[in-house]
Amino acid sequence: MKRREFVKKAAVGAVAGGVLTGCGRAAVEGPAVQTRPSVRWNLASSFGPSLDVLYGACTLLSRRVSELTDGRFQIRVYAAGEVVPPLQVMDAVQQGTVDVGQSASYYFVGKNPALAFDTTIPFGLTGRQQVSWMYHGGGLELMREVFADFNMLNFPGGGTGAQMGGWFRNEIHSMQDLRGLRMRIPAMGGEVMSRMGVSVQVLSGADVFPALERGVIDAVEWVGPHDDEKLGFHRIARYYYYPGWWEPGAMLSFMVNRRAWDRLPDLYKTAFEIASAEVSQDMLASYDEKNPAALKRLLQEGTRLRAFSKDIMEEGERVTRARLEELAARDQGFEKIYTAWKQFKQDSFHWFAVAEQSFMNAAFPEV
Amino acid sequence: MKRREFVKKAAVGAVAGGVLTGCGRAAVEGPAVQTRPSVRWNLASSFGPSLDVLYGACTLLSRRVSELTDGRFQIRVYAAGEVVPPLQVMDAVQQGTVDVGQSASYYFVGKNPALAFDTTIPFGLTGRQQVSWMYHGGGLELMREVFADFNMLNFPGGGTGAQMGGWFRNEIHSMQDLRGLRMRIPAMGGEVMSRMGVSVQVLSGADVFPALERGVIDAVEWVGPHDDEKLGFHRIARYYYYPGWWEPGAMLSFMVNRRAWDRLPDLYKTAFEIASAEVSQDMLASYDEKNPAALKRLLQEGTRLRAFSKDIMEEGERVTRARLEELAARDQGFEKIYTAWKQFKQDSFHWFAVAEQSFMNAAFPEV
Repeated sequence: MKRREFVKKAAVGAVAGGVLTGCGRAAVEGPAVQTRPSVRWNLASSFGPSLDVLYGACTLLSRRVSELTDGRFQIRVYAAGEVVPPLQVMDAVQQGTVDVGQSASYYFVGKNPALAFDTTIPFGLTGRQQVSWMYHGGGLELMREVFADFNMLNFPGGGTGAQMGGWFRNEIHSMQDLRGLRMRIPAMGGEVMSRMGVSVQVLSGADVFPALERGVIDAVEWVGPHDDEKLGFHRIARYYYYPGWWEPGAMLSFMVNRRAWDRLPDLYKTAFEIASAEVSQDMLASYDEKNPAALKRLLQEGTRLRAFSKDIMEEGERVTRARLEELAARDQGFEKIYTAWKQFKQDSFHWFAVAEQSFMNAAFPEV
Repeated sequence: MKRREFVKKAAVGAVAGGVLTGCGRAAVEGPAVQTRPSVRWNLASSFGPSLDVLYGACTLLSRRVSELTDGRFQIRVYAAGEVVPPLQVMDAVQQGTVDVGQSASYYFVGKNPALAFDTTIPFGLTGRQQVSWMYHGGGLELMREVFADFNMLNFPGGGTGAQMGGWFRNEIHSMQDLRGLRMRIPAMGGEVMSRMGVSVQVLSGADVFPALERGVIDAVEWVGPHDDEKLGFHRIARYYYYPGWWEPGAMLSFMVNRRAWDRLPDLYKTAFEIASAEVSQDMLASYDEKNPAALKRLLQEGTRLRAFSKDIMEEGERVTRARLEELAARDQGFEKIYTAWKQFKQDSFHWFAVAEQSFMNAAFPEV
């Protein structure tokens, strides 16, 4: 069946996404071109090569899709800023400027607050739970409905696992120390921190380090040991807080323009889908291998680990819940996802607390 | 380059694994057959369809590989016992009776004790850590060396996550209650339990339920809520212990006959590899979605959750360590893997304790 569809499509002409390469290649490459049209996509990432694991997901996806299609489906990867600025990736995909984007959907909550569920929610799902929710808990279907409004569809593209709480110039003993603290923290984490008294600073990636260095900000959260180490925050701020309760399992996404997608032959769709699943597993596996080594080095260089106090954790959770309820009351689309997500989370945390946490706490007590 | 290789191979004849379908199909299906030889593999699983998540990994792999090759690379899945008994899967692959097997490598520690690292080790890596070790921590390379001695190569094929400690007819308050307890528990978990005073019973899958029902055994460990519920242990034994510290992150494997592998065109190798990665992520995601719901139902039906006592956990860890050191002292191959694995584990647990566990313990306190 599928083969016949290919042959049929090929008979009426090459099938293509954003950019078509010439059909002249057919003569050189032999008859298989009849079933393997050349498709070229452009991918815009919100990240640059210095964030090697995040950006590496794009190059891995591109390589795998090419390998699965005899090199006929090529995805050219552009780093942040090369074709569009990092925070315009979603617009670029929607408008068809590029065929696919790699980003964190929560950057775009201004368009629809429910996009946060595609990435992470404070006190929400862990990395493993987020993957489970997306692929088996109905999350992907719900998020696809949101992306459909933008003429796009999303594919889970990997996660960071639980992030760190960031770098602080001074110790934070309790809620009181958060008052007036100038901190770089984006998305819903920033909203919640702001309600907890923090003076939230909006800074683009490049400005974060100088701001911390010059004392314009007191604290900054980024990702985790592997990415943070490269930026050198530990050379300025000594206290490294955990956990990053506002990003317990951040997931990246590939956002695909619907028209480009619909034009793909079935095989290329399948190749993209399976490759993105491989990439998804691979990113978390890579972070889980790189973070431990980076943490070790940071500690050797004098970084001091600190846990957020109980009152901060409790207030963070309370404020988060209030914020989520507020958004749900205001927006039916948000409420629909929130209700399903909340039930999944409740059941999932209960199960993880039984088998997974009890094992980990016995095998390696909390620091 | 790759395309040229295909064309060359196709010119000298169809490339095939275990079973070749007739070349007569070429005429019907058109010219693309020149680059897509028909390959048929047989897969023997150690599991049956009633273990839907484990067995489902085989059918998903088969479907995906077919989709990626226009149906030219077919993998026919045989359930446990259909072509070989469950515990002869590795032999069948080695001898080329089947091209690929799905099993848990630790069933075959009699051939080489290091095969346990391919599945799980008591007090070893969690599901996420095992994936990270395999794909990014050097684990796959080490395990491939072990499988090479059997003329095979392995592919990670999914995991169960932390398992449960099993079903007990009576409460186990401390080490003392383990003395003489008749329990069905296989692999290294059984060895360790045996040294802890348990009378370990070796029973094949089908005999487990009747043995527990008739009181021939006092306890049984299986997998987790989703699989355990279907077997109905909760109707006989009321106490459900956690965690299954002897299987904190059990991983399944696809074992491939080396000769069959070497005959595959590059594209089919890539398709198999990527599909197995998708399957790997999918199995854990599926268990993480199904276990919470099953646990809820079990509790509603009267199952009582119990944590293993501290002295049992500590003694389990001590005995496990002694056993691992013993094996390492006896076997250089085991020692090589153990040394690398132990370092990975140490660093990984430290990192997880910081970010992941501290978050989970705050978000959902242990039951």
